[in-house]
Amino acid sequence: MVAGNDGVFTWAAPPLKFGVAALDEIGLDARTLGLRDVLLVTDAGVRETGVPDRVRDTVQACGVKCEVFDGVAVEPTDVSIADAVSRARERPWDGLIAVGGGSAIDTAKAVNLLATHGGDLLDYVTPPVGAGKAPPAPLKPLIAVPTTAGTGSESTAIAVVDLLSARIKAGVSHPWLRPALAVVDPQVTVSLPPEVTAASGMDVLSHALESYTAIRFDTRAAPAEAGKRPAFSGANPISDGWCEQALRLVGRYLRAAVFNGRDLEARYHMALASTCAGTGFGNAGTHLPHAAAYPIAGMVDAYQPAGYPAMPMVPHGQAVAITAPAVFEWTYPAGPDRHLRAAELLTGETFSRADGAQVLPSVLRELMTDIEMPTRLRAFGYGEDDVEALIDGTLRQTRQLGVVPRPVTREALARILRACL
Amino acid sequence: MVAGNDGVFTWAAPPLKFGVAALDEIGLDARTLGLRDVLLVTDAGVRETGVPDRVRDTVQACGVKCEVFDGVAVEPTDVSIADAVSRARERPWDGLIAVGGGSAIDTAKAVNLLATHGGDLLDYVTPPVGAGKAPPAPLKPLIAVPTTAGTGSESTAIAVVDLLSARIKAGVSHPWLRPALAVVDPQVTVSLPPEVTAASGMDVLSHALESYTAIRFDTRAAPAEAGKRPAFSGANPISDGWCEQALRLVGRYLRAAVFNGRDLEARYHMALASTCAGTGFGNAGTHLPHAAAYPIAGMVDAYQPAGYPAMPMVPHGQAVAITAPAVFEWTYPAGPDRHLRAAELLTGETFSRADGAQVLPSVLRELMTDIEMPTRLRAFGYGEDDVEALIDGTLRQTRQLGVVPRPVTREALARILRACL
Ligand SMILES: [Fe+2]
Ligand SMILES: [Fe+2]
Repeated sequence: MVAGNDGVFTWAAPPLKFGVAALDEIGLDARTLGLRDVLLVTDAGVRETGVPDRVRDTVQACGVKCEVFDGVAVEPTDVSIADAVSRARERPWDGLIAVGGGSAIDTAKAVNLLATHGGDLLDYVTPPVGAGKAPPAPLKPLIAVPTTAGTGSESTAIAVVDLLSARIKAGVSHPWLRPALAVVDPQVTVSLPPEVTAASGMDVLSHALESYTAIRFDTRAAPAEAGKRPAFSGANPISDGWCEQALRLVGRYLRAAVFNGRDLEARYHMALASTCAGTGFGNAGTHLPHAAAYPIAGMVDAYQPAGYPAMPMVPHGQAVAITAPAVFEWTYPAGPDRHLRAAELLTGETFSRADGAQVLPSVLRELMTDIEMPTRLRAFGYGEDDVEALIDGTLRQTRQLGVVPRPVTREALARILRACL
Repeated sequence: MVAGNDGVFTWAAPPLKFGVAALDEIGLDARTLGLRDVLLVTDAGVRETGVPDRVRDTVQACGVKCEVFDGVAVEPTDVSIADAVSRARERPWDGLIAVGGGSAIDTAKAVNLLATHGGDLLDYVTPPVGAGKAPPAPLKPLIAVPTTAGTGSESTAIAVVDLLSARIKAGVSHPWLRPALAVVDPQVTVSLPPEVTAASGMDVLSHALESYTAIRFDTRAAPAEAGKRPAFSGANPISDGWCEQALRLVGRYLRAAVFNGRDLEARYHMALASTCAGTGFGNAGTHLPHAAAYPIAGMVDAYQPAGYPAMPMVPHGQAVAITAPAVFEWTYPAGPDRHLRAAELLTGETFSRADGAQVLPSVLRELMTDIEMPTRLRAFGYGEDDVEALIDGTLRQTRQLGVVPRPVTREALARILRACL
């Protein structure tokens, strides 16, 4: 241990119920949490799958009142959340169930915070953008039901929101935002289109890979105020174990889940990979691919991906994956063994230092090509003229930048982004 | 998935703060949990190390009232717990801090339950011994500070108690018994004598090995009442990962921690192993070595181990380890690959089916000999005449017997116990 460095890491994850037909028990779970009247938060697209209404029926059959709010925005903003909060205030509820991807679960976290304790989203957003206030007391119980194997939001204590006013993605983070229970039923992912499966799967992969290669918690300075660690505080021996398991599973099952959505064994293990990665990165943190993903998704003009709602958007998983090969080539010198080990876990092969910095990027590019993910920023409509703006947007993501394992300069970012064009 | 079998597993662990000097922040942690007045529960032996009073001072320095109760019994009984409960009722408190091994943490769990909700221990003990009542509402926050790398109680939702009236070890188990926070500071284990380090380390090893070789959750029948799984519900993919990590760490660091207690690297990794194993077995379960350990410890007559208080006792870790080699030879046919894999994780070597059932027992015996653990039941004073009573006591541990990977018969137990004489 180096004097002045932090000797301590923290780790936390919500209780988990995992398995085929886990959703059938959600009414009992709501009752066990003491709930009698819940608000189910979802979006219109997820509602079409029938899962939210099935959850409502199961919950009601156990004698718990349940109303569905399906107005979650595809990309939650301060405006869409304010709308959800005012809808949520129209009637009493003593708990929430979020059904969907990151948008639904993050919206439910923010609704829980603002409807329970009042105030404005900006009061709670991490400084310097917001005031960084802590909630004055615990929130109401939130049960999170992820319907994609990707988000990880069911495990984390963070809600990420697009602040339209400030034109920036920002996070609200506090241990009390963490769901009281995560219910993961791999069956609900069977109907996801291949493009969504591919992008969500690459998001899982990148959660695991970024946490695994983030700075180590004990190479960071001790927190200035005792006990106040950043929300992302670096890789630790517990997060490492979860990330390794996620990498192993993604390497083994992602292709099969994309190629045949009805392969329940592949779906099962991708759901497990997502849970493992979510549990791992929740406290360790993601770094550069996620930092760059925010402007890449935020500045989109006309790109309309197959398999998603008909609107201009770069799906989060595509935005993250697009820079991953170039980023991990650049971070290689910060920890060659971890990068090689990650490539080994993804492939089942063995690599040595002689194989060098190219191994992991090659493994990623090969996987992305196989599952037909975009591999070039130009696919989203970006060109040389956008590089400076993308750099600006990336440099605003201070939470992620705090755990990148190499000093981040404009020049380094320019090289990485240009390599991705 | 087999029709009629359970498709679902659950997993939970308390938030963790881990590291060198983690204890320095415990006052802030108590405040973050909203505590203003806590009861610190410990035993007289642990108090002599100075750790409980240091914790009290740290907590008080943060403006949180704290009183020390050091009357925990070395082996908690219904009588010692009733005494602790009446002491706890003498003054108000809004939370607990348990400092010690399994005895202190289990006592604190029981005190929290009975002082908060009233009633008798037997009301909550698992049937058929007790009435199996669930607590009517959540308990007060409990912060668990393990001072040995062994118990795992800081992670689990179970308190194990000796019922003097019924002459049986019994468990009280409910998710609300789980600590609100586990604070693991490897520095506090540095002063443990080698005998305690060895026995606690073998307890960790056996937690991991028993969970890892327990029946798989999905080979068990679905619960008769929906959602009501047994407290020990079998190995699952999440517990497996934790157990593998624990086995790797014990194999690599236990000898060093026993041979030189001041080897902080070894202490650090044994504390980590204990945390990993505790997180793994908490929901998966332990099986035969733990079932047999209860009568082995309970029927002791005159054995007085070095390094422990001067009274007749078989330390839990010694009681568990003594049958482990014979048990894992017997369970080998139920899952040869897992047994071989465990031996690989413990040694770093590679084994194949040709090596057979003897590999894992040999690895265990070699380790126990190196760290000078007793390896024969005769060391505790048991002989041929005690075998029937030991079998009777083992067969009463229904929680553990439910996940043993082979049918347990009197004949099988007799063979195993005789092999250990
Ligand atoms: Fe992500
Ligand atoms: Fe144990």
